[in-house]
Amino acid sequence: MVDDRALEVLFRNARTHNLFSDKPVSDDTLRRIHEIMKWGPTSANCQPMRVVFLRSKEGKEKLAPALSPTNLDKTMKAPVTAIIAFDLRFYEHLPRMFAHNQTAKSWFEGEDKKAHAETTAFRNGSLQGAYFILAARAAGLDCGPMSGFDNAKVDAAFFPDGRFKSNFLVNLGYGEGSALMPRNPRFAFDEVCRIL
Amino acid sequence: MVDDRALEVLFRNARTHNLFSDKPVSDDTLRRIHEIMKWGPTSANCQPMRVVFLRSKEGKEKLAPALSPTNLDKTMKAPVTAIIAFDLRFYEHLPRMFAHNQTAKSWFEGEDKKAHAETTAFRNGSLQGAYFILAARAAGLDCGPMSGFDNAKVDAAFFPDGRFKSNFLVNLGYGEGSALMPRNPRFAFDEVCRIL
Repeated sequence: MVDDRALEVLFRNARTHNLFSDKPVSDDTLRRIHEIMKWGPTSANCQPMRVVFLRSKEGKEKLAPALSPTNLDKTMKAPVTAIIAFDLRFYEHLPRMFAHNQTAKSWFEGEDKKAHAETTAFRNGSLQGAYFILAARAAGLDCGPMSGFDNAKVDAAFFPDGRFKSNFLVNLGYGEGSALMPRNPRFAFDEVCRIL
Repeated sequence: MVDDRALEVLFRNARTHNLFSDKPVSDDTLRRIHEIMKWGPTSANCQPMRVVFLRSKEGKEKLAPALSPTNLDKTMKAPVTAIIAFDLRFYEHLPRMFAHNQTAKSWFEGEDKKAHAETTAFRNGSLQGAYFILAARAAGLDCGPMSGFDNAKVDAAFFPDGRFKSNFLVNLGYGEGSALMPRNPRFAFDEVCRIL
């Protein structure tokens, strides 16, 4: 069991932040996110998520044209913006990552498996994206995840060879609580779950 | 920051379990998973995940024909199997769930937005699936998540009206550590992350 303090940091009291303090985010902190999130489970240990952390002015400016107007200003000001992407050819690593079954690569390889490989990359890359958000909170950061951007523009700017696809973005830093929105409601158990 | 003990339970020491003890999983424990995971962030607070917990013999037998041979036996024996699904018409709830912007529903509604709505449901339903796995661990359970099943058969059996789509399955219970596989490797930071 996990104690209330940890659940507050990860889930209950954590909020989506739009405004961050000037405190920079170190390489060590970014590496700590990875050290935590990497243990989250993926199908056949496929680990398709790839991350580009944008911290420099140049990196941010390369992203800017892809952002929706409501996400532009806050993203330019955030200490770091992470592009959460996935590798469409993740299966090339399976002989190493799922070594006890050397046929696993063949489940995804080839033109006729392309849709299945992409679905697997998107599903598991998204699971890893959620592990990433919670790991960032565990590492003391606040997150501002976003879908409001042009994925095709991000892919063209950062992944021109077509192997990686952008999934979503996460602003990272130390949040200024003053700019928080009121918390939105959540579904009750009986609205979204059934026990059979 | 979250302490090491919590990170061990959620990430570092947690393993995918195939074999569970006979100890039953109570309604209270299933409700506790939801109470924790519901706070995880989703785009425009869309919360598309829907869950069917199969605990009865009848529920399990309805699932059986959809399982791959390697997942059949362990799933029939697990105390509970959760079908993690998503609602393709999640946007109908946005006037309540994202009340400060009453136009949000229109971002997803209509034939021409169908692909965008499905991508949003799949991405955010998968994020919530990851919150679900970690919340189950936080509630003291062990998980065995699986993609090895026929999604179309699960959808026909459990969601015949076509509104919900199955995403993945999670066996739940109190794990028997004796049946664990050796732990698979993980990518190093520099293999999957870049800082620009």
